[in-house]
Amino acid sequence: MTVYAYETLATELTDRVLILRLDRPDRLNSFTVTMARELEDFFTRVSDDDAVGAVVVTGSGRAYCAGMDLSATGNVFGLDESLRPTMQDMTERLDDPAIAGGVRDTGGRVTLAIYGCRKPVIAAINGDAVGIGATMTLAMDFRLASTKARIGFVFGRIGIVPEACSSWFLTRLVGMQTALEWVMTAEILSAEAAREGGLLRSVHEPEELLPEALKLAHRIIDNRSPVALALTRQMMWRNCALPHPVEAHRVDSLAVFYSSMADGAEGVAAFMEKRTPQFTGKASQMPPPWPWTPDQQG
Amino acid sequence: MTVYAYETLATELTDRVLILRLDRPDRLNSFTVTMARELEDFFTRVSDDDAVGAVVVTGSGRAYCAGMDLSATGNVFGLDESLRPTMQDMTERLDDPAIAGGVRDTGGRVTLAIYGCRKPVIAAINGDAVGIGATMTLAMDFRLASTKARIGFVFGRIGIVPEACSSWFLTRLVGMQTALEWVMTAEILSAEAAREGGLLRSVHEPEELLPEALKLAHRIIDNRSPVALALTRQMMWRNCALPHPVEAHRVDSLAVFYSSMADGAEGVAAFMEKRTPQFTGKASQMPPPWPWTPDQQG
Amino acid sequence: MTVYAYETLATELTDRVLILRLDRPDRLNSFTVTMARELEDFFTRVSDDDAVGAVVVTGSGRAYCAGMDLSATGNVFGLDESLRPTMQDMTERLDDPAIAGGVRDTGGRVTLAIYGCRKPVIAAINGDAVGIGATMTLAMDFRLASTKARIGFVFGRIGIVPEACSSWFLTRLVGMQTALEWVMTAEILSAEAAREGGLLRSVHEPEELLPEALKLAHRIIDNRSPVALALTRQMMWRNCALPHPVEAHRVDSLAVFYSSMADGAEGVAAFMEKRTPQFTGKASQMPPPWPWTPDQQG
Repeated sequence: MTVYAYETLATELTDRVLILRLDRPDRLNSFTVTMARELEDFFTRVSDDDAVGAVVVTGSGRAYCAGMDLSATGNVFGLDESLRPTMQDMTERLDDPAIAGGVRDTGGRVTLAIYGCRKPVIAAINGDAVGIGATMTLAMDFRLASTKARIGFVFGRIGIVPEACSSWFLTRLVGMQTALEWVMTAEILSAEAAREGGLLRSVHEPEELLPEALKLAHRIIDNRSPVALALTRQMMWRNCALPHPVEAHRVDSLAVFYSSMADGAEGVAAFMEKRTPQFTGKASQMPPPWPWTPDQQG
Repeated sequence: MTVYAYETLATELTDRVLILRLDRPDRLNSFTVTMARELEDFFTRVSDDDAVGAVVVTGSGRAYCAGMDLSATGNVFGLDESLRPTMQDMTERLDDPAIAGGVRDTGGRVTLAIYGCRKPVIAAINGDAVGIGATMTLAMDFRLASTKARIGFVFGRIGIVPEACSSWFLTRLVGMQTALEWVMTAEILSAEAAREGGLLRSVHEPEELLPEALKLAHRIIDNRSPVALALTRQMMWRNCALPHPVEAHRVDSLAVFYSSMADGAEGVAAFMEKRTPQFTGKASQMPPPWPWTPDQQG
Repeated sequence: MTVYAYETLATELTDRVLILRLDRPDRLNSFTVTMARELEDFFTRVSDDDAVGAVVVTGSGRAYCAGMDLSATGNVFGLDESLRPTMQDMTERLDDPAIAGGVRDTGGRVTLAIYGCRKPVIAAINGDAVGIGATMTLAMDFRLASTKARIGFVFGRIGIVPEACSSWFLTRLVGMQTALEWVMTAEILSAEAAREGGLLRSVHEPEELLPEALKLAHRIIDNRSPVALALTRQMMWRNCALPHPVEAHRVDSLAVFYSSMADGAEGVAAFMEKRTPQFTGKASQMPPPWPWTPDQQG
């Protein structure tokens, strides 16, 4: 298993589920440029770690993540204010070090890494999730929360805009009208309001939150092919927004083709023989069509 | 009227509604390569059959469709395992006989044919709809089900992936979080759970299912222009996923333009004269902008 | 402040909220080519009017808008029936006067202007909203309605098709299955049914409707940066339908970058000092990345 050693994150592996904790409890796990870099690194590397079946993300202490740490000196978002970047720069030079380090939204680098991840990702929102604390969860597959959690897309209160690709992710979860109300009013939502609006899958008593997240993870990974699961996750996120279903069909065809010759052959045999399948595929060794769309995050 | 003679399907026309039955009741209407070919043929041909106003799809016997028939010999999905297809093949050679017959996902060929159909399509899910039995309904306009129906996106259980363009269709019906849970857990849903999640329009007592589906069909087709209805269906499915609303505007403009000079002129006159309109347009003779986007399915 | 003088519209500014009334009460505010032109003009100009923080749209008298005025002579939609336009015309010559004036859907010109607007737009649907009266509200951010309102996507009844880019907008609000039922049955919905389906944010007693719409407007604009709000509105509408989240990331990065150096710097300072921020940005002077996607409507 990969060794994950981070300054702002703590990791714990239990029965194939990696629990990732945002780990600055004395600062309510507020987000820093270091945390951004470490989260991006984690979600990129965990895809190739075959000891990990799924990831559960939670916070150390009483908060999930209280948003950007606004106490930093200089530009609190870590941006290089000497630059004057344009859309052409963002289109042609996204990975140029000056743009990547001084202009790119750090929250978006994290959500794009989650989007590209080959493991299911479950948010267990144990307390307040505000600003980037809220938007980072949108790229995760499921959001479970404690009754004590509060969620806020509060960017408008400090004169900035929602980030982390949230304009792309949020409307896929809650519909346009609710999404607009949450980002335009910039108000704090109770867990119950966030569940009613469709953002949260479920709300739990504080002590039940992590056990429920782990239970969901096991419903997904136990006796399943890690390769089929990785392909499924990527097909859902990458195909949902394509302009025509035939684009999904191209991917589906190859994904069925190659999986039916590997873990799928074992799966069909086990089904016919009424026994538990023994899958051998590894998400670190993906078949075609992976990766079928070039993007910034593998 | 076209004569539809199939090995795995039965057809019945009643008052302009064609009832299509998946018709292998002794095999729970399980899906075969022959059934795929026949469904694709049916949904392509029915568009030009002016005797048919709408299609209702149901199953013979107690199941709707129990998924792929896994008892076939060789590759149960009908795939040519001697090939090693790539995304380039899927982009450039989708209709090449070797790719079309040995690589393309048969479920996707069916849902793309439904997507391109010029008649409203209503699923009347009379019993279990599992695997392709579930995903084929996603491209239909409405899903009514019996209280006895169960729905399962069970692909993960046998080491394969959701197909039939379901990664494109499902999120348009139930939102991303629910869609991910259903395909990742691969569990069987009750009719009530599927209705609460937004997949099913309504759930009915078994003996009420077909009458309710027919009633809905007549609310849609009686005293309506088949041309305007065909354009409306295609506009909804084709425009919803375009990246900018101006792309819909190009299509809308021509659709309003040409329909206002034909059945629309009669519709306005009838409205002003407070009488029932007498529409004469035929879906077999579509005006511009049809077909406005080239695709694999006319 | 800009002077708005229109034939079919009335305007009233109250505490930074502009109340726009469809103002042909003796004709149930039915839509004409003149009203279309005036609405397009209004939503384009109000973006640069820094006296206006938000727009509330309602109807004079007992209706909101009873649809197209079908009593006009000639083509009631204002179309030039001597032309035979093609998709190539719509792609290459959308602003050619012959196409713009004689072919383009007038409803779509209005919803595209609303889409491009830099102010939040709230519909206060005081009575019947039918045809274009219903579809024009889909591009607005929020739809509040009176208990007396009824909504109808009735195009199919007169042999034409839904317009105003509604095939793009409606599915973002209510999901595909409900959207298809509403446009295919073409039936009139009660306010309560429209709220349950997700179209309406909330339903109010007639005398409470306008006060509630104004209250929502103030939750959005009071003590907020008009620039951040304009960027937020445009990011939500423009990014939601892009095929990959990295496209949103390009825009987010610049929007955070430039807002963090302007109103965002004041917002962070005010937050740290626990005082109300004093924002100075103006929506008439937008920073990069505005306008990031070229389109027909600025």
